[in-house]
Amino acid sequence: MTATDESTAFVPGHVTGFFSPCPADDPARAGSRGAGLTLTDGVAVTVRETDESGVILDGDPIAMPPVETVLDDLGVADRARVVAESDLPLGTGFGVSGAMTLGAALAANDRFGGERSVNDLVTLAHRAEVEAGTGLGDVVAQARGGIPIRLAPGAPAHGRLDGVPATRRVEYVTFGGLSTADVLAGDTDPLVAAGDAALDRLVDAPTLPTLVAESRRFARDAGLFTDRVREAVDAAVAAGGEASMAMLGETAFALDSGLTDAGFDADACRTCAAGAHVTD
Amino acid sequence: MTATDESTAFVPGHVTGFFSPCPADDPARAGSRGAGLTLTDGVAVTVRETDESGVILDGDPIAMPPVETVLDDLGVADRARVVAESDLPLGTGFGVSGAMTLGAALAANDRFGGERSVNDLVTLAHRAEVEAGTGLGDVVAQARGGIPIRLAPGAPAHGRLDGVPATRRVEYVTFGGLSTADVLAGDTDPLVAAGDAALDRLVDAPTLPTLVAESRRFARDAGLFTDRVREAVDAAVAAGGEASMAMLGETAFALDSGLTDAGFDADACRTCAAGAHVTD
Repeated sequence: MTATDESTAFVPGHVTGFFSPCPADDPARAGSRGAGLTLTDGVAVTVRETDESGVILDGDPIAMPPVETVLDDLGVADRARVVAESDLPLGTGFGVSGAMTLGAALAANDRFGGERSVNDLVTLAHRAEVEAGTGLGDVVAQARGGIPIRLAPGAPAHGRLDGVPATRRVEYVTFGGLSTADVLAGDTDPLVAAGDAALDRLVDAPTLPTLVAESRRFARDAGLFTDRVREAVDAAVAAGGEASMAMLGETAFALDSGLTDAGFDADACRTCAAGAHVTD
Repeated sequence: MTATDESTAFVPGHVTGFFSPCPADDPARAGSRGAGLTLTDGVAVTVRETDESGVILDGDPIAMPPVETVLDDLGVADRARVVAESDLPLGTGFGVSGAMTLGAALAANDRFGGERSVNDLVTLAHRAEVEAGTGLGDVVAQARGGIPIRLAPGAPAHGRLDGVPATRRVEYVTFGGLSTADVLAGDTDPLVAAGDAALDRLVDAPTLPTLVAESRRFARDAGLFTDRVREAVDAAVAAGGEASMAMLGETAFALDSGLTDAGFDADACRTCAAGAHVTD
């Protein structure tokens, strides 16, 4: 616990390039395989002790069930106020809900003198996200940082992670949201087949060009491209860039200057070397 | 592979607070349990393609067998020059040899267009350190970053890590080196007993105050304090600070301003949120 009356955690954004959902009865074992990029653009989550509990995102109150679940699990739901400032829009494939959930767990544990380990807090946040249906693999990826490869699904006691050893500039353009729940409610067989094939190929050659090329093949084979994202990705590739779609949001991402080279007014950040962590 | 003719990796320093050696025939399974702090003071390791191979530390050529082993494993020993710049002195308990080995693996893979995953490179570096007898747990801790708890020994396929969820200022004073090999060549039973007991207590309450208090108890119970380090640690504790000894070096470390409060001319850095990573 720090000396001030609030604690803050930073959680990187996470763009999933491809994935296979892995359902399980136990939410700590459920999740997804796949790979993506964590981003220096992310979410700063501050927890304050107060009678006026609630969750605020970028100045506005918001209902965020997985955040409420982790506060409840930590026994502080009635006296914690969660104030999140996000560099990234919610619901567009950047893992903002996972970031808020994991950030709330880390900051609340710190603020209230909790004695949970990192793995414990990641497990709480992962379970809460899976139960809420807001994410399958973001929390464990965001806890790791870097360019995570999710080899086996689930919280730290069950999942297995590796990574692509690289650091790179990342650009993105967002056209809108997509519902993860809607996609997962449809026929997921093509998605699982495409995701598993992409993962096999990335494990054979764990490099950034492979990750982005396999992400593009996945988006196409799983039928997930929207027209606007496909146009942006095609334009970036035609301009010599490496680009694909964020799973799941109507968002195109590219390495280096791939989207600006294709004429888009893109935001830019970098892959994030650090995983989620308490700040000062 | 980047466009320039060199690649650089940053690897945080690592101060082990307590440990239990865990020998095994397979160096990927050998290592240590324990806990420590990774530091923003660390080592930047640059690999260049050149006919003039060799290893340079802070401007001077140095023989560093584990670095040579990883270059050999990656098939680049005859054409890689490794140039390391360290914030920390070698051989005094900061994991500089582990940092050079892991940094060389990451930078060489990047420079020569290797297709190794992070776990593969960490495994190469961990094996090389264990075989050289220069370290048991530094590499896996430095790969993770933060405040690592090493629950089970060994490279990523075998070991298990957790962490203390905190960020803090760290001070240190170094009086000289200690030989890890000499300590491990003696009777290690008291050390294993003290290390396992410290780990059990940290797992029960994974906080920074517990980590430092258990480190101090370990240094005392295992009989590893030198007179100069004991005096510095006692002075910091008498001044209200939290301090212990770096395993294994004649180095005292403290949280916050613990050593300067006790009148020492200490260096200062912070716990490092990021694990080892390729930089630009």
